[in-house]
Amino acid sequence: MKIAVCQINSIIGDIEGNKKKIIDGYKQATSNGADLAVFPELALVGYPPLDLVTKNYFRKKCAEATEEIGKLTNNTTALIFGSITESDIAGLSQKNDGEHKADGSEKAEKEKATTIFNSALFCFRGEIKRVINKTLIPEYDIFHESRYFSPAEKSSVFTFKGEIIGVTVCEDIWNHEDRAGAIQYPIDPIEEQLEAGAELLINISASPFDYGKRTAKYEMLRKISRNNGVKIVYVNCAAAQTDLIFDGASMCFNKTGNLLKLGKLFSEDYFIFDTNATTAANLTSSLKESATTHSGFAASEKSKASAVSNPTSGATSVVDDSSTSGDISTPIVTVERSFEEEVHDAIIFGIKDYCAKLNFKTVCLGLSGGIDSAIVAYFGAKAVGPENVFVTLMPSEFTTDSSTTDALKLINNLRIQYNSVSIQPVFEKTKEMLKLLFGNTPEDVTEENMQSRIRGLYMMSISNKFGHLLLTTGNKSELATGYATLYGDMVGGLAVIGDVFKTDIYRICEYINRNEEIIPREIIEKVPSAELRHNQTDQDSLPPYPVLDKMLKLYIEENKEIDEISALTGDEEMVRQFLNMVDRNEFKRNQGAPVLRVSKKAFGSGRKFPIVQKWRR
Amino acid sequence: MKIAVCQINSIIGDIEGNKKKIIDGYKQATSNGADLAVFPELALVGYPPLDLVTKNYFRKKCAEATEEIGKLTNNTTALIFGSITESDIAGLSQKNDGEHKADGSEKAEKEKATTIFNSALFCFRGEIKRVINKTLIPEYDIFHESRYFSPAEKSSVFTFKGEIIGVTVCEDIWNHEDRAGAIQYPIDPIEEQLEAGAELLINISASPFDYGKRTAKYEMLRKISRNNGVKIVYVNCAAAQTDLIFDGASMCFNKTGNLLKLGKLFSEDYFIFDTNATTAANLTSSLKESATTHSGFAASEKSKASAVSNPTSGATSVVDDSSTSGDISTPIVTVERSFEEEVHDAIIFGIKDYCAKLNFKTVCLGLSGGIDSAIVAYFGAKAVGPENVFVTLMPSEFTTDSSTTDALKLINNLRIQYNSVSIQPVFEKTKEMLKLLFGNTPEDVTEENMQSRIRGLYMMSISNKFGHLLLTTGNKSELATGYATLYGDMVGGLAVIGDVFKTDIYRICEYINRNEEIIPREIIEKVPSAELRHNQTDQDSLPPYPVLDKMLKLYIEENKEIDEISALTGDEEMVRQFLNMVDRNEFKRNQGAPVLRVSKKAFGSGRKFPIVQKWRR
Repeated sequence: MKIAVCQINSIIGDIEGNKKKIIDGYKQATSNGADLAVFPELALVGYPPLDLVTKNYFRKKCAEATEEIGKLTNNTTALIFGSITESDIAGLSQKNDGEHKADGSEKAEKEKATTIFNSALFCFRGEIKRVINKTLIPEYDIFHESRYFSPAEKSSVFTFKGEIIGVTVCEDIWNHEDRAGAIQYPIDPIEEQLEAGAELLINISASPFDYGKRTAKYEMLRKISRNNGVKIVYVNCAAAQTDLIFDGASMCFNKTGNLLKLGKLFSEDYFIFDTNATTAANLTSSLKESATTHSGFAASEKSKASAVSNPTSGATSVVDDSSTSGDISTPIVTVERSFEEEVHDAIIFGIKDYCAKLNFKTVCLGLSGGIDSAIVAYFGAKAVGPENVFVTLMPSEFTTDSSTTDALKLINNLRIQYNSVSIQPVFEKTKEMLKLLFGNTPEDVTEENMQSRIRGLYMMSISNKFGHLLLTTGNKSELATGYATLYGDMVGGLAVIGDVFKTDIYRICEYINRNEEIIPREIIEKVPSAELRHNQTDQDSLPPYPVLDKMLKLYIEENKEIDEISALTGDEEMVRQFLNMVDRNEFKRNQGAPVLRVSKKAFGSGRKFPIVQKWRR
Repeated sequence: MKIAVCQINSIIGDIEGNKKKIIDGYKQATSNGADLAVFPELALVGYPPLDLVTKNYFRKKCAEATEEIGKLTNNTTALIFGSITESDIAGLSQKNDGEHKADGSEKAEKEKATTIFNSALFCFRGEIKRVINKTLIPEYDIFHESRYFSPAEKSSVFTFKGEIIGVTVCEDIWNHEDRAGAIQYPIDPIEEQLEAGAELLINISASPFDYGKRTAKYEMLRKISRNNGVKIVYVNCAAAQTDLIFDGASMCFNKTGNLLKLGKLFSEDYFIFDTNATTAANLTSSLKESATTHSGFAASEKSKASAVSNPTSGATSVVDDSSTSGDISTPIVTVERSFEEEVHDAIIFGIKDYCAKLNFKTVCLGLSGGIDSAIVAYFGAKAVGPENVFVTLMPSEFTTDSSTTDALKLINNLRIQYNSVSIQPVFEKTKEMLKLLFGNTPEDVTEENMQSRIRGLYMMSISNKFGHLLLTTGNKSELATGYATLYGDMVGGLAVIGDVFKTDIYRICEYINRNEEIIPREIIEKVPSAELRHNQTDQDSLPPYPVLDKMLKLYIEENKEIDEISALTGDEEMVRQFLNMVDRNEFKRNQGAPVLRVSKKAFGSGRKFPIVQKWRR
């Protein structure tokens, strides 16, 4: 069977626009002679649609578009795409084999509320033939699907063009293999489908990116394929949805677990997968066509994924050698490049797609001469082009000459647009006016924050006047410890590096400079400073970043607490002090710009911490 | 049986502090000769604990405190309190009769993840005797409990001092009666307990306030009691947890549905309920002792709850006449006062508790002379005392003299502290500096926002310098339409009236002025204006508030869409325009201060709307 994998970028809520993409992709599949075209999870509405799902009118529009798409299918090419369905829609419920609420007895008749599903629609010959509902409803980290969707009761398979096919949605495929730390559900939809004789598993997903996940996903799918002799077609979306980034990287396996097709990274893609194929002739090329410029993963030295050389070809582990199919020594493919490269590409895509979807042509930011604003300026330039990046230098009495020189050097390297306006006169005028209230109270952090807020005032004025998207430059270490000024340096529409620790900023800068010095060496090597008072350094208030970040990673990303972190780092009192500091600053993060998520635990919808609380370690 | 109802205010995460409250309350119950002391849902950890629940170390501390409390119980007085339990705790799982994961088969052995429950612990004679887990796990509006808790499989009852008791947690009791628009669960824990012979139902809750809910709750519990001849003890907490307000109002019913005890509103309370009682001698006094000053609900003309006079006593419908117990004409008690009074008291409690828990002694805000900042100043004064309220007038070239006069009149009425600092010099200096960048581009909303942001800069500086909690003054109509300036008038720690529509602000002001003019009549009667340009009025940009608010209420609180709203209000194009405007401004609300929730749908954790989206009606 020839399957057209349609790795699209759906805009949340844009039923009409997404419908058009699905129809266009389907038509292309038909003209390419494909037997089946497959689109991602909730392709029609975008993922995650959040409370749009609760609107009767929205679901009505969704149902109308779903029916319309189904009617357009012809007699040669079938279609699978993700959409919302509900049990009360006329005619549709009859197609829901085996899917009903948990207690199907008398109470079901009492139920007046509509039951809503996260569904895959299988359409052919002008009809919706089957509705396959998501079984495992994820409720952790950034997933909040129980708010909207009821689970399917059981899985089934069906035959199409001679193949027994099992279709699942996203989470459904994550429960079959034992994975350390993974959620364990009592139901295994894949097991049910395998027992029912499935030869081809099709999983449609909206699977967000975080570093390491693609490798884990690949290894999991590979195991399922190899251990059971089944082909797998895994279709993911490629999109940025405010804070969440979806990396595409759809995957197609033959029945011995060989990865034969890998979709583009951080980019829409379309390709045909022949389920009879045994070789991966096109594998390398699809990676090389990834939309963002990179040196190709094969050359990456920092790749975390395990790689086994292919002795026969003498090449690196790029291509899976089908001649050894079935052989336990079949090499594993490297699907993930280095941390630096992946996060770099993810962030650029995140900015680019945010701008595209909200019709921002230009971005702006304050440039301090420090590493954080430097890297954000770089990312902005890569995302929208240097001609569309407007940076503002805003010196004060505390700004060193070298900060200005360094900033200008960066501006020159990046060829971005810039201007410079001192905050000093406004700072002095503000202090003068407030002296009426402050009298002779000594200057303190109030005056430091004032400077930061005047910069925020300037940047928002520039953003308002010219229509630029203001990018904020706070990193994860600052957001964690609250070493940032609310309404000051925190202002903006998108927190570009809010999920990147300070130490990782340095790593990515080294990656950026791998071929030529783009981020000036002076910026990378200078002692970090907010320059809000004379001779200030970050380390006046914080431990050295390597120490701090290690602690923060354990706390935030590993969810460890004082007992385990102290055991690993020593100095229980320092750990207590900084964990308390992180907690106390939730009120700041609560009012911050959306953070582009690139790790497994970002500040944002995946992490809920109370503002008013007294958790005493 | 004498039951001590311990309506406490738990601080989230404060295991040690909450433990002490539970022990103190239990000891008081013992000394009062009570047979049983009952505390609210999750009394030991506060509600909602959010991701604290996911921390092994936190749960360990919780378990230790739970065991410690259990050990302290004596041979005369039992104890029920809410806490977190998990299935892996040594010894505890044996007490969980009938509570296990949905699929108890082989998969359960595979499960490495701990199963966590939202539990009621029944303790007596130095032991935890029973663990009763919440069965119905709410996942809507502000409830996100599936993220943490697994459901109990079934309910059971037990006998204590001769009574067959069924204990449930919060949501469990909400499924027994048919209520329009309510969630329907397939399981009914109350039904199971009634079938098992329960004579006394004890429900421990953390039930957030929104206007109308207390009445619905009372009617629901009354029905359960009357229809089944069971006594009910319903124990709620009284607390503000950042944005969520819990109103206390614990309720005790005799077996014919007569409300014999009503806990204080918006205040901790402690009282003894004798399950053999038939009269409600103390009912009126407990209402009169409500912590916030009010004229007593009996006198309220605007009460929404149904009220039937008691012909025998000639009094108003305050007291339930037990002499007619069982008689279908038994009067229904009014448990909820007017909208204005309830919301007034809720907001004051919300500010007061926020300050108390975060150790703020003083509050500040910008006072414009308009009605919103006036009512916030009033609420601040009621919450922390006028000597602790610091308002700042910040006039500009656009400030009318009457605004200043009106503000001073309010200040005088409230006896709050004030100062005045013009923004004009800083505004002019800022414009002068930015002219370098703006050239001759005409002034527009940029300069309006600039003024707002300079006020934000001033107020945050004052807050930083003196340690005041800054209150924001935006109302729900503004937050909905985005008629507010990000980092300007939106700055602050708590959005006091962010869940009150403009038209309701006026209603509450009339209530405030019911005995004497506190909010100056001039402030109430003036045309609303942001005064950011000459002769500006809100209605330059917005429809008249009664029209706008009607539309917004239908959209936000009733979740209606363009089809239904247009049918009710006419003018589909205006509806489309304003619904789109609401959606487009999600990015502002996303960065706003926490909003004190007083309605059934507030901006906040109960409403999730995408920022990047293209939902086209």
